[in-house]
Amino acid sequence: MRRVRPADEGSVGVVRTRALDLPGPLALDCGRTLAPVRIAYETYGELSVARDNVILVCHALSGDAHAAGWSDDPTAPSAVDGAGAGGRAHGGLGWWDGMIGPGKAFDTDRYFVVCTNLIGSCRGSTGPGSVDPATGRPYGTTFPVVTVHDMVRAQAAFLDELGIRTVFAASGGSLGGMQAIEWALQLPDRIRSFIPIAATAALGTQGVAWNAIARNAIMADPDWQGGMYEGTGRAPTAGIKVARMLGHMTYLSDAAVRERFGRRFQERDEPSYDLERADFAIESYLRHQSEGFAKRFDANAYLYTSRALTYYDVARRYGGGSLARAFSRVRASALLLSFSSDWLYPPRDSEEIARAMRANGRDATHVVIDADYGHDSFLLEERRMTEQISAFLDRVARERVA
Amino acid sequence: MRRVRPADEGSVGVVRTRALDLPGPLALDCGRTLAPVRIAYETYGELSVARDNVILVCHALSGDAHAAGWSDDPTAPSAVDGAGAGGRAHGGLGWWDGMIGPGKAFDTDRYFVVCTNLIGSCRGSTGPGSVDPATGRPYGTTFPVVTVHDMVRAQAAFLDELGIRTVFAASGGSLGGMQAIEWALQLPDRIRSFIPIAATAALGTQGVAWNAIARNAIMADPDWQGGMYEGTGRAPTAGIKVARMLGHMTYLSDAAVRERFGRRFQERDEPSYDLERADFAIESYLRHQSEGFAKRFDANAYLYTSRALTYYDVARRYGGGSLARAFSRVRASALLLSFSSDWLYPPRDSEEIARAMRANGRDATHVVIDADYGHDSFLLEERRMTEQISAFLDRVARERVA
Repeated sequence: MRRVRPADEGSVGVVRTRALDLPGPLALDCGRTLAPVRIAYETYGELSVARDNVILVCHALSGDAHAAGWSDDPTAPSAVDGAGAGGRAHGGLGWWDGMIGPGKAFDTDRYFVVCTNLIGSCRGSTGPGSVDPATGRPYGTTFPVVTVHDMVRAQAAFLDELGIRTVFAASGGSLGGMQAIEWALQLPDRIRSFIPIAATAALGTQGVAWNAIARNAIMADPDWQGGMYEGTGRAPTAGIKVARMLGHMTYLSDAAVRERFGRRFQERDEPSYDLERADFAIESYLRHQSEGFAKRFDANAYLYTSRALTYYDVARRYGGGSLARAFSRVRASALLLSFSSDWLYPPRDSEEIARAMRANGRDATHVVIDADYGHDSFLLEERRMTEQISAFLDRVARERVA
Repeated sequence: MRRVRPADEGSVGVVRTRALDLPGPLALDCGRTLAPVRIAYETYGELSVARDNVILVCHALSGDAHAAGWSDDPTAPSAVDGAGAGGRAHGGLGWWDGMIGPGKAFDTDRYFVVCTNLIGSCRGSTGPGSVDPATGRPYGTTFPVVTVHDMVRAQAAFLDELGIRTVFAASGGSLGGMQAIEWALQLPDRIRSFIPIAATAALGTQGVAWNAIARNAIMADPDWQGGMYEGTGRAPTAGIKVARMLGHMTYLSDAAVRERFGRRFQERDEPSYDLERADFAIESYLRHQSEGFAKRFDANAYLYTSRALTYYDVARRYGGGSLARAFSRVRASALLLSFSSDWLYPPRDSEEIARAMRANGRDATHVVIDADYGHDSFLLEERRMTEQISAFLDRVARERVA
């Protein structure tokens, strides 16, 4: 949302997360309706007169609407680990700042980039921490279980309010990539192209299991209190820390942790022979990282977004079990990016989507980026993602003119 | 321990776990000494007059001394999942029953097979659940942190009491394989051959991390009470379940869980849209399996054995950082078995040991068994392990005669 002050080269500057209330209730897959629905969002760049330059950026499990620039709120927690607030004049950097800005992959000199916080999350949009108008108290686990379909339905209703009918491109990594895919499937007339990164049309068995275990870790914490912990002065901090450590490991590749941590001890040369101490550097790192996460992310929101992630299943929903049949409804062009060392959302999952697209004569390019950082590469491999995305968007724009 | 009744073909029959108290204290790596030390054990077959036919079978993290045959205790929990007690005349099957017995890989018609429960564990040997003579109360976390070196030191002291000086072969999978390796390193004059299966000379970074997260899950449970839960009527059941689910996933390969569970729902066709329910078959399986585990295994014992597992580091301990230098002290012959789909203890870890052996002109064979079941293959691939182990033991026996 507009540059507030002269910013670093390529930066969108200091931005504020805004909120918009949808005018009506939102119908959900589970059969319930959600109302009211508030959507927290940020925008970068200018909407063209034709309203045809919108890029929707979709965040992953623990992200938020603050995708680029510096938050105007010095106290806002930052989704960029290690970039939390600390007495600065502004808040943290957006989670995809390297990808969004003047001259960047999602070039704000050309495109109007929009990022919304997911429903079910905890960073401004309506979620389990919001007040249920029926009771006057936070929903907690009485909040309906939402799906990726619902999340996209909410995004579309939000764009309606902005007067935006068509998305030029939808993109995101991981759960964000699922939303990009879902846009192409659910709203084929409203999207020109989609760029799912490190994504999948259905999470594999290992991913389903890791997510289930992480959720179990939260629900096993007595401070979770069946999910109705808001206002009790206690929250499942211990549980969400375990969930995060576990999740974090699944995002990293074997090679990455070997190289960065190996079997190095943390600030010692010998074992402590102490049961509770984090002797190894990797243990210490995971504990430290999970503590920061527990401070900035709500446990129930983790449960809801994780559940949505595991439920998503394109073939089941749209193709009667067939991915090729599911993608027959798609009209948009696709660029799929995956990373060689991502074992949770492996390249074969992206290739499967590309094949299903091509089976229907659709335009799909899949590029496997050779990268050591596992699933987290979608937040790190900016240069190589930028090359691919810029070229792809240029081509789609040219084809539109032609 | 002798056949008690005519048993099935190839079975050692019904056996009883016995206990032996070491005559003196045991010096530990951490600098403390442990006394008294009780060792729970089973034996199968007959000790030869020359006392030269001993095979030491070493158990993994959650195993016990009951390696073969049926337990004589119908109420004893069984390490073989799904083989728990249930109103039978005898207890569960030993955890490596397929490998130990007349005509099997560890042939009780020829060998005297010994299996001891590890110190620090909870199945009869001295561990954190034992009474500390200094206080008259269970040790809990005042029990000293033990290492694989200590575990082997205890086994050697135990064999001394049985009048056994030399081990013909030591074998085991996972942590059991580490003990086999440690025998060859710590007691080069007392061992003829060793057969580490799905083992490593030092757990990789991912393994260190998964173990740390599992321990954190236990310690995060308020019912853990700093480890002093014995006698309080509460135990960290929720924590150990999370730890077990997590550990269990690391033992299984991607291919195995895809094939067995896929994204299949458990007893339903559609999502439940319920946050707490285990919708997917893999979730349901993990929960069920972890409940059984929580009943049979003590949380503190898990912490101690897991800590020992991650500390083990052959190069650091014996080679000043060099694995080749470490193995220069070994005299025994080695057969190393690993499994193609084991991502936690991958084949390259076994190959590294074989190379270090050969660099010293030692006899080492490494066979990678092509198997889909991940780390758990060491409990499952009986036929192919048997082929390799039988041939290897025959050769070592022939070489001894020659």
